[in-house]
Amino acid sequence: MNVKEIEGTITTPLDFFASGIKTGVKEEGKDMALIYSIVNSEAAAVFTTNQAQAAPVKISREHVEGGYAQAILVNSGNANACTGERGYNDAQKMIEIASNKLGLAAENIILCSTGIIGEYLPMDKIKPGIERAVLNLKENGGSEAAEAIMTTDKYQKELAVKVDIGGEEITIGGIAKGSGMIEPNMATMLSFLTTDAEIDATLLQDALAEAVNKTFNRITVDGDQSTNDTVAILANGASDNEAITEKGDSYHRFVEGLTYICKKLAHLIVKDGEGATKFVTIEVEGVTAEEDAVQIAKGIANSNLVKTALFGEDSNWGRIASAAGAVGVEFDLDKLEIRINGQDIFGPAQQVYNHEDDLLKEPTIKIEVDLNSGDESAEVWTCDLSYKYVEINAEYHT
Amino acid sequence: MNVKEIEGTITTPLDFFASGIKTGVKEEGKDMALIYSIVNSEAAAVFTTNQAQAAPVKISREHVEGGYAQAILVNSGNANACTGERGYNDAQKMIEIASNKLGLAAENIILCSTGIIGEYLPMDKIKPGIERAVLNLKENGGSEAAEAIMTTDKYQKELAVKVDIGGEEITIGGIAKGSGMIEPNMATMLSFLTTDAEIDATLLQDALAEAVNKTFNRITVDGDQSTNDTVAILANGASDNEAITEKGDSYHRFVEGLTYICKKLAHLIVKDGEGATKFVTIEVEGVTAEEDAVQIAKGIANSNLVKTALFGEDSNWGRIASAAGAVGVEFDLDKLEIRINGQDIFGPAQQVYNHEDDLLKEPTIKIEVDLNSGDESAEVWTCDLSYKYVEINAEYHT
Repeated sequence: MNVKEIEGTITTPLDFFASGIKTGVKEEGKDMALIYSIVNSEAAAVFTTNQAQAAPVKISREHVEGGYAQAILVNSGNANACTGERGYNDAQKMIEIASNKLGLAAENIILCSTGIIGEYLPMDKIKPGIERAVLNLKENGGSEAAEAIMTTDKYQKELAVKVDIGGEEITIGGIAKGSGMIEPNMATMLSFLTTDAEIDATLLQDALAEAVNKTFNRITVDGDQSTNDTVAILANGASDNEAITEKGDSYHRFVEGLTYICKKLAHLIVKDGEGATKFVTIEVEGVTAEEDAVQIAKGIANSNLVKTALFGEDSNWGRIASAAGAVGVEFDLDKLEIRINGQDIFGPAQQVYNHEDDLLKEPTIKIEVDLNSGDESAEVWTCDLSYKYVEINAEYHT
Repeated sequence: MNVKEIEGTITTPLDFFASGIKTGVKEEGKDMALIYSIVNSEAAAVFTTNQAQAAPVKISREHVEGGYAQAILVNSGNANACTGERGYNDAQKMIEIASNKLGLAAENIILCSTGIIGEYLPMDKIKPGIERAVLNLKENGGSEAAEAIMTTDKYQKELAVKVDIGGEEITIGGIAKGSGMIEPNMATMLSFLTTDAEIDATLLQDALAEAVNKTFNRITVDGDQSTNDTVAILANGASDNEAITEKGDSYHRFVEGLTYICKKLAHLIVKDGEGATKFVTIEVEGVTAEEDAVQIAKGIANSNLVKTALFGEDSNWGRIASAAGAVGVEFDLDKLEIRINGQDIFGPAQQVYNHEDDLLKEPTIKIEVDLNSGDESAEVWTCDLSYKYVEINAEYHT
């Protein structure tokens, strides 16, 4: 393991600054974050594939295509989604102000918004907010930024890792917000990462896609994908590593570190899922293609019948078998094996095992589904479906 | 409209008999149904595509391939799914007993089971039960059969229609069970139809597939597909219509009647959905392919965020737009229009309309989503997601 987890955040890597301030878009608490590198950085990002993309997603996608960025500006409390031309102009205006105040080209700024869909940004609060966010940039401001991107997450999510690359230690820091929401529609998943590693933008994009694909793309709280989901990374090259310019050992070590931090942040999001009482790992193994394993695992993870059984602590494996079978990936039921927390529950040859009734009492659950038909596997992480989830999403909108 | 709805059931068409009796598999109430035609009938059926198919599904699929059946035997309380070789042998034994007692070839019997997954059938109760079911066959036994296939549906679901075909009136009767479940895993959707029309088995299969595709296949309570779902029809030709042997006017009238009864039964299932407080029609229009409309409508119908908003009576159209956008079908957000119960909520050009807060107070809700990019459309029916759904699926398993 070349990765060492440390207490840290996005300002832990060298030469990054950040701020988290209150503009008043949200009634309470910080609601704007700014992340800044003292030099222009290689940049990469992955965005929601939702057709109803928010204005800032459209703009940021174009900016990141250039391969460089120096700042990430984020507001919470309003998603600026489904807001048409006016919303697009508001987003451009935000970038223009940040560009002036930071003295950066507009295309070197990434913009993200999270919050209610279909309401216009209150620009009278946003404009002075951006100025304050610039003035408040601090060498150790990462935690404040982590706080400011929260909507109603129960806790802030931040982390850093150190990775040895060719004898030099580089640092990757990250923050994330999940989908604990009181005001509805704030289901956006956002994560921002910084690193002082020196790496080409193209490789950075590949590394991010690789890491996200096995981490953020494998969590599900309720199967709903937001209009604003974004994961972005800046690499400012402030550390002394030999520049990563090809997919050799250094690249793979970097990907390992990036995957580690993304996975930890992704797990924190699931643990803070709306109404969650269980953290559930679903591992599907013994298939011929990894994508099949992902599909089956997500089918199980998104089954409301499985999720309510988990909440009810009912080791109802029939629902797991049925959800696996409904996905559309062919398998032989006679070879299917299911284990919960290491205990055999079902199969092979459709054998049913007796089991303890308190198999699901633990807050952390592992469901293993083995199709015994290949060497590929995949893990997906989810939570249960509780009364609280219904309450959060049905009651809190006035 | 060539279809006339009447109070009726599966014994309303000429020369069908049925029974519904108690075997004791379920603690309370009737739990075995038998449907019988006095002559061997053209038969057709559609089954679950779940990979974890129950033993009776496997056997019935083979029997229906022959194009004929004379009886349908159904037990509730135990799905005989994920029960391996023993389960398969038990299902064969059930058919053997029915075959002896009814004096029919085994392959002219369709067998269905619904109930708990992964438990063996208590054959000591099933065997004498089949004998009693045969002895209890009655000319007006349809309602008893409708009662016997219920698991914990709140009410029985039955209906008949009369259709004028070439000057002769034929009758189609139907019963169904939904997914109101107290004992978990009883999520099976079953429907049995009878008709005295004379129609070729191949055309009957086409007609059934056509009707089911636009009705039962377009309802969703929680997106979970069971291991036992079955819709089967027997056509005994007892009426005086000229045999339907080609896809002409008579065939289309028959399909119209069959679609009518399937749609009504499907709606009854949704209305009796677990914890449902709303009956919701989602119509997606203005697309280039009907399949796209179905996909988007199902994406909205299965979104937990949309379903909880409906329960909370919160006309939260942002969740509808987001769920539509997450499906993967491309569309232009600027052209998107959303209406709830006829009232404009969103678009075109991402215009947001003001609306009454009590737009969702009604128990019956229609959501219209218009992509304004084609002439195709589709409707899907669903219900909301309530505390009761979580309670039913989390609490009741001891």
